Amino acid sequence: MVKRNIKLTISYDGTNYYGWQKQPNMKTIQGEIEKAIYKIFNCQVDLIGSGRTDAGVHAIEQTANFQINSEINPDKIKVALNSKLPQQIRINESKEVDENFHSRYDAVGKTYIYQIYNNRVSNPFLNKYTLFVPFNLDIEKIKEASNLLLGTHDFNAFRAENLLVKNTVRTIHDININKDGNLILIEITGDGFLYNMVRIIVGTMIKIGSNKKEKTCIEEALNTGNRQLLGHTVKPNGLFLKKVYYKILDTHGSML
Amino acid sequence: MVKRNIKLTISYDGTNYYGWQKQPNMKTIQGEIEKAIYKIFNCQVDLIGSGRTDAGVHAIEQTANFQINSEINPDKIKVALNSKLPQQIRINESKEVDENFHSRYDAVGKTYIYQIYNNRVSNPFLNKYTLFVPFNLDIEKIKEASNLLLGTHDFNAFRAENLLVKNTVRTIHDININKDGNLILIEITGDGFLYNMVRIIVGTMIKIGSNKKEKTCIEEALNTGNRQLLGHTVKPNGLFLKKVYYKILDTHGSML
Repeated sequence: MVKRNIKLTISYDGTNYYGWQKQPNMKTIQGEIEKAIYKIFNCQVDLIGSGRTDAGVHAIEQTANFQINSEINPDKIKVALNSKLPQQIRINESKEVDENFHSRYDAVGKTYIYQIYNNRVSNPFLNKYTLFVPFNLDIEKIKEASNLLLGTHDFNAFRAENLLVKNTVRTIHDININKDGNLILIEITGDGFLYNMVRIIVGTMIKIGSNKKEKTCIEEALNTGNRQLLGHTVKPNGLFLKKVYYKILDTHGSML
Repeated sequence: MVKRNIKLTISYDGTNYYGWQKQPNMKTIQGEIEKAIYKIFNCQVDLIGSGRTDAGVHAIEQTANFQINSEINPDKIKVALNSKLPQQIRINESKEVDENFHSRYDAVGKTYIYQIYNNRVSNPFLNKYTLFVPFNLDIEKIKEASNLLLGTHDFNAFRAENLLVKNTVRTIHDININKDGNLILIEITGDGFLYNMVRIIVGTMIKIGSNKKEKTCIEEALNTGNRQLLGHTVKPNGLFLKKVYYKILDTHGSML
């Protein structure tokens, strides 16, 4: 038997799950995929995700990997897992990667998207995937404010309190705010994100876009680390992990 | 008190409802809206829809009307009803119309859309709103075949069996087949549709697009009325009532 390191790319609708991370007696994404792997290989593996997503958060392309002794064609693992998984979780790709590849340690960046439905009446088809905001939002103000987050900063104010984190310095490479009909899409790319960071950024943007806060609150929060200066943590259901970036080479020599 | 005829335009996610039409002890769209009207006006009304939609079918813009004795600003009825209705049902507009306006009798046409997700792996975010088709579909073949349905025909073969209908002649004005990434959208406009007609058309298109039937089956079915020549009745969850058309004037003199 050959020991193989298998990389999965995964989409999921997080609505009815308690997030990525395995927890006893809770339905989680990691837990469901490990169960499916067990059904196929009769082997308990440790599935390493690129990072946790919270309860209710979705993924367009989450990345994970696991080690397995098997002769199976790596591409067939996708089909086998999809046959065992609930429809809310889909494996879009399965392939063999370098034995040292690690989904979490090797991740060099991530893109998240937050979706807002901005209209007087909510949309029955988007309830699960958007935050409904019935009042006017000034997109230009939001764009201006978002530029203040670009670059390397101490994002201590932009995280859930009562959690110990050693290093709260992160780099935001890019923020795009796009309006598509009544949808507002906030897309943020960075080297990593603190717990609740994207949802606090979006909560702050909503306050700025509705004239309840000035954009200067962002500079003050970055300087002081004071969470109270910012908007609330918005609901998870509008949040999607869009992409995880890696630098290392896979076994076929192409960039991941 | 002034007696008013109120026209509603309504969106709904039909996933968890037993269709439009009120039924005892079943959650239906008509039933839920009549309950909401009762809560606001303390009055049992008969809500007339433009037509029924089946269990699991959605609506982007269904039309309905009801008579009420009330001084309330008609525009405010929308807000009041939305505050009482479940999030899966939204009133997008409420307005006063001519006392003789009747949502069903005055409808002169309808547009339906059917959504197919055509990819090897299904999409967790579209499960509720698409039919998943994992094999290749030849869009050009489907387009050619769909042209045979245009015009006025006896659609007796294109309806649920064991239902008595006097007149099975209908006119299809327009069919558009569009591909948007992995989504295939089949949009059909006609003067009216028989029970299951759109879902049988789509089932037949899938057979033709996957080379399991020839487009000649459509001509034969139109000529013979033989249901067996056609494809199966596809699932309701990909079907959306998009629009209902009227000719008559509303109270403000504009075309509805």
